[in-house]
Amino acid sequence: MRFISKAAVAAVFAVTIAGIASQAVAQQKPDEALKMRQGLFQAVKMNFGPIGAFAQGKGALPADAAAKAENVAALARMLPMAFAKGTEALPGSNTKPEAFASADFAKGFGMMEEAATKLAAAAKAGDEAGIKAAVGDVGKTCKGCHDNFRKE
Amino acid sequence: MRFISKAAVAAVFAVTIAGIASQAVAQQKPDEALKMRQGLFQAVKMNFGPIGAFAQGKGALPADAAAKAENVAALARMLPMAFAKGTEALPGSNTKPEAFASADFAKGFGMMEEAATKLAAAAKAGDEAGIKAAVGDVGKTCKGCHDNFRKE
Repeated sequence: MRFISKAAVAAVFAVTIAGIASQAVAQQKPDEALKMRQGLFQAVKMNFGPIGAFAQGKGALPADAAAKAENVAALARMLPMAFAKGTEALPGSNTKPEAFASADFAKGFGMMEEAATKLAAAAKAGDEAGIKAAVGDVGKTCKGCHDNFRKE
Repeated sequence: MRFISKAAVAAVFAVTIAGIASQAVAQQKPDEALKMRQGLFQAVKMNFGPIGAFAQGKGALPADAAAKAENVAALARMLPMAFAKGTEALPGSNTKPEAFASADFAKGFGMMEEAATKLAAAAKAGDEAGIKAAVGDVGKTCKGCHDNFRKE
């Protein structure tokens, strides 16, 4: 498959990039923020879940556990973009409005990234005890924010 | 804020991790896959859009352009998880069913990751011409898959 002919590069640039750029530079719409939140959290589940299952003795360690843990760290870096100011009041959102004004909320994602990065390092080293400890640390950051900022 | 007391670690492990693990190890549900796709593509737009706007002379280079480009590379690595087999037929999906059987589809995400990684390197180096060239390369991978695998 050719992804695109060389002759069409200028057209791609004008059409594809212009479309995506003009949409993204504008303020993120609340419904887009909600979609982004839900998708990123689903991605957290898909990446962290199998490693969590291993830590609980409920599955084998995924062969790509380090990559999955790095994905979780990347998701933690992106999640704050999905909770931007202006996206507080959303039908269907499970986030308490006070989260957006809380320094702890932003800090929680930083802690999640840090714990996931340690998880990736333990997975790379094949350190099973380290993986289990780091899974617990990631889980604590999940629970910390859920307890404080997720609606019942 | 304490994210959690030390005494509660065992409980967290048993509840939070068990919940997330049991859900993720099971086959991803089609509606979850769709949610993940939509959220990850929204994240692509939020991260790539502002750099694309710069490349088109429509905005300043984001101060965190390198981090944004790295996010795009991470999203390219995660997107195939959102198009897993078994999630072909979804109401609301814009993906042609033949995408799932195509080696080019998976390859496209690899090309997207590669282009985004080059974009991150150019942004780190402050190489504006390199950024613009890499934006075009990322855009080509967007357009390549959209042309071939996205429903009209």
